[in-house]
Amino acid sequence: MLKYPPKAVVLLSGGLDSATVLAMAKETGYDCYALSFDYGQRHGFELEAAATIAAQAGVAAHRTISLDLGSFGGSALTDPDIDVPQAGEDEGIPATYVPARNTVFLAIALAWAEVLESQDLFIGVNAVDYSGYPDCRPEFIEAFTRMANLATRAGVEGQKMTIHTPLIAMSKAEIIRAGTALGVDYGRTVSCYAADETGRACGQCDACRLRRVGFEQAGLADPTYYLS
Amino acid sequence: MLKYPPKAVVLLSGGLDSATVLAMAKETGYDCYALSFDYGQRHGFELEAAATIAAQAGVAAHRTISLDLGSFGGSALTDPDIDVPQAGEDEGIPATYVPARNTVFLAIALAWAEVLESQDLFIGVNAVDYSGYPDCRPEFIEAFTRMANLATRAGVEGQKMTIHTPLIAMSKAEIIRAGTALGVDYGRTVSCYAADETGRACGQCDACRLRRVGFEQAGLADPTYYLS
Repeated sequence: MLKYPPKAVVLLSGGLDSATVLAMAKETGYDCYALSFDYGQRHGFELEAAATIAAQAGVAAHRTISLDLGSFGGSALTDPDIDVPQAGEDEGIPATYVPARNTVFLAIALAWAEVLESQDLFIGVNAVDYSGYPDCRPEFIEAFTRMANLATRAGVEGQKMTIHTPLIAMSKAEIIRAGTALGVDYGRTVSCYAADETGRACGQCDACRLRRVGFEQAGLADPTYYLS
Repeated sequence: MLKYPPKAVVLLSGGLDSATVLAMAKETGYDCYALSFDYGQRHGFELEAAATIAAQAGVAAHRTISLDLGSFGGSALTDPDIDVPQAGEDEGIPATYVPARNTVFLAIALAWAEVLESQDLFIGVNAVDYSGYPDCRPEFIEAFTRMANLATRAGVEGQKMTIHTPLIAMSKAEIIRAGTALGVDYGRTVSCYAADETGRACGQCDACRLRRVGFEQAGLADPTYYLS
C-alpha cells in the first residue's frame, strides 16, 4: 500500500540536470530522498553543490555514498592520467564516460528505494546531448527497469518500479527554461568536468559548452563564471 | 579482440559458494579478477576469508570495495536491530535478504569488467537453496545481462557480456563435491550469518544449516567449527 505523499529516490550530482530533476520530482508531489556519490570524481565542488541544492529543495533526506570507482580507472573523470577532452574532440563514446556509472548509481538507488518502500527513481539522463553515453539511452533505462522489477522484494510482490527520466528528450535550453520556471538556482550547480581549485568552470570542456549554449538558446542569463 | 587467457571478474564473498565459483572459473581457463565488498556486513571474517581464498587461487588481482549499504538499513545482515532468524524461521523473502545486493554487486563488477575489457562475470547465486532471494533467480540474471549489454561500451560495440552462474541449479552437496574435486579449502570459507567474535559459526542460522546438511549429503567431512 503506497503512502501519500509517495517517496522517490532522486539521483543528485550537483549538476544542472539533476537539480532540475529534483525540482520536477518535488513539483509532482514526491517526498524526495536525494542520493549523491563520492566516486572519485576529480573535484569535490559537485558534492558541495548537491548538498546545497538538496537543502534548498527541502528533501526528506540526502545521502552521499562513497564508492571508489576511480580505483578501476578507465575514465577521464576519475583517472588523472586521462585528459578531459575539449569540446567536440571526442567521437563515439567520450573519454569522460565512467564505466557502468549509471548502472551502479541506479543499482544503489534501487537498494535505498527498496528499504524506503519507494517505487520511484528519478535520474537526469539525457539522450539528446549525451547520445555518446550508452547508459543514457532510453533502451538502457527500459532494460534496467525490467531487471529492477525482478531483483527486488517489491517486484516479487507485484509492485512495479518506475525510473523517471523527465529530461531524456529535452534540449539543454528546454531543461534550463523548465528549471528556471520551478525556481532552480543554477548559480549553485556545477557542470564543468575540469573546474579549478576554487570551483570555477573551465569553459572548454563538453559540459561547459553544452551549458553555455543552453543558457544562450534559452535566452536566460548564465550565472556561471567561466575561466575562458 | 579477446586476449588469451580471457579475463573474468569473479564475485568473492569469502563463503563456500563463491570460493567454489572461483575454482571453477580458474579451471575453465580464465584469468580471474576477484571482487569483494565491505558493505556493512555484521562481521569481517568473510573478508579475511576472501583474501585468503583469492591468494590460494592465484588470482590476477583482488579488490575489496567499501560500500555503506548498511546505512540504508533493511536487512538482518547489516542492521543490528534486526535479528538473524534461526533456520526455518522465515517464510517468503528472508530477513537476511539485503536489498538489491546482487544488483549492486553485479553493477560494480560490470564497471570493473568494462575497464578490464572482460566480457565474463561469475557469481555464485543458487536458485535451489536460496529460492527466497529475488536476485538469485535465473530470470533476474537474464534481465541483468540484457541490461548490461545496453549499459556498456562493449555492448554498444557489439560484444556481449556473459554472467556465469555455474551453481545456479546445484544442491549444496553437489557444490561441495565439485569444489572438493577442484581442491577448494573449505576450512577457509565462512558461511555463518552470525559468527562470534573469533569467527566461529553459530550452527543455528540458515547458512549454517545449509552448509552442515550439504557436507553430510556430500558424504564429506565438514571442516567447520559450529558453536552449537
